[in-house]
Amino acid sequence: MIKEIKEHKSVRNFSTKQVEKQKLEEILSAATRASTVGNMQLYSIIVSQDKEILESLAPCHFSQPMLKDAPVIMTFCADVSRFSLWCKMRDAEPGYDNFLWFVNSVIDTTLASENAALEAQAQGLGICYLGTTLYTAEKISEILNLPQGVIPVTTLAMGYPKEDIEHPMTDRLPLKGVVHYEKYSAYTNEGLEEIWRDRETSEQTKQLLEENKLDNLAKIFTDRRYTKKDSLHFSKVYFDFLTKQGFFNI
Amino acid sequence: MIKEIKEHKSVRNFSTKQVEKQKLEEILSAATRASTVGNMQLYSIIVSQDKEILESLAPCHFSQPMLKDAPVIMTFCADVSRFSLWCKMRDAEPGYDNFLWFVNSVIDTTLASENAALEAQAQGLGICYLGTTLYTAEKISEILNLPQGVIPVTTLAMGYPKEDIEHPMTDRLPLKGVVHYEKYSAYTNEGLEEIWRDRETSEQTKQLLEENKLDNLAKIFTDRRYTKKDSLHFSKVYFDFLTKQGFFNI
Repeated sequence: MIKEIKEHKSVRNFSTKQVEKQKLEEILSAATRASTVGNMQLYSIIVSQDKEILESLAPCHFSQPMLKDAPVIMTFCADVSRFSLWCKMRDAEPGYDNFLWFVNSVIDTTLASENAALEAQAQGLGICYLGTTLYTAEKISEILNLPQGVIPVTTLAMGYPKEDIEHPMTDRLPLKGVVHYEKYSAYTNEGLEEIWRDRETSEQTKQLLEENKLDNLAKIFTDRRYTKKDSLHFSKVYFDFLTKQGFFNI
Repeated sequence: MIKEIKEHKSVRNFSTKQVEKQKLEEILSAATRASTVGNMQLYSIIVSQDKEILESLAPCHFSQPMLKDAPVIMTFCADVSRFSLWCKMRDAEPGYDNFLWFVNSVIDTTLASENAALEAQAQGLGICYLGTTLYTAEKISEILNLPQGVIPVTTLAMGYPKEDIEHPMTDRLPLKGVVHYEKYSAYTNEGLEEIWRDRETSEQTKQLLEENKLDNLAKIFTDRRYTKKDSLHFSKVYFDFLTKQGFFNI
């Protein structure tokens, strides 16, 4: 298996060492080598290294620990604006300010981000994806001056891993938990029990349940990490902002 | 740069040689090593190899040439169903049937697909992403038996590249065309002229314009490949199906 895929893990503690310009460019070039619908490259990558901008972005990511020292924040944005401006300049009528192209551009953007993540590892760096990007997309857009037709999708915190801290790999469900041959096989309770068993019975889970005074791992997600109430709130927030950014000429 | 990223290209002509089970599993394992929000793995990968299923999927992808011989079609689906079923089984209340989690799951799904694409190359295979997935998501879902909470996002056609056919690399915009340092810099007409110049003046473009009797490259996109009319139609189609699949409890 490709080394960087096999050894991929999230790094949440960075040394303060700056990332060399040449490495950054290699990472960004890797991002642009990803497949893209119609070779349209419907994304923009905003590379933040300025201390003041990094500090203003940190609260957008709930000031999680990895924000404290990361010397680089890359915000990956879906961007149908650049392509549409080019079309208009050529007297061609673009029709990309709608939901289909939002999804297309999210795919483009995410493919690019994964190439960047893997290449960062190849360059000796560590990364952590920041899912908080969707929660505070409007605030991030203000800070980064994003125009209509551009919206943040995901973010990579990036830097040299702190050497004296262990950065553990995370387990995954067994392959048969996510792969279906030929057609989708409906999950049975027995099947679900089996694919989650290792994780549910792990020492880490036991500790987590004690700390949270909850009786099972699923409730860690539904009652603590990602509650229905928060999800519905942030759904509306992102959807409304998407509309405001002009992606909803469905 | 990671070899598979640097040499990445779309392969549209496959030999009929079958893909070994062990290689497939390595590719699928690579997919699951990608980052995933909260380690929830909000995707399912449907691996189709059965001739009858491949033939029924081909028209969903407009029977493009790469469908003719590809021995494997991997349909990458956003899946909030499995996780939600597990929550319910544990008497925990899931709140993931909404737009926020659609976007989260599209990101999860796409990160996994890119790992699979790169690992396929490492295994000597070729791939092509099929953007048609979004156009015919409902028909694909019928063929693959996708339940509520699951929707196709992207597809990889996969197989051994046909040896006697050239599979060219595609150019990309110069890095400064898609990367912004610190903040988004609005594109000027001069800037747009510059980043598209090479492509607009290429021999390939000249030939394309002659064949299509059009006066510039942008119109190839707006008047031929991705018209506004089609985009609005497929936007509505995908959005409606997303709602039908239960992803719009916003």
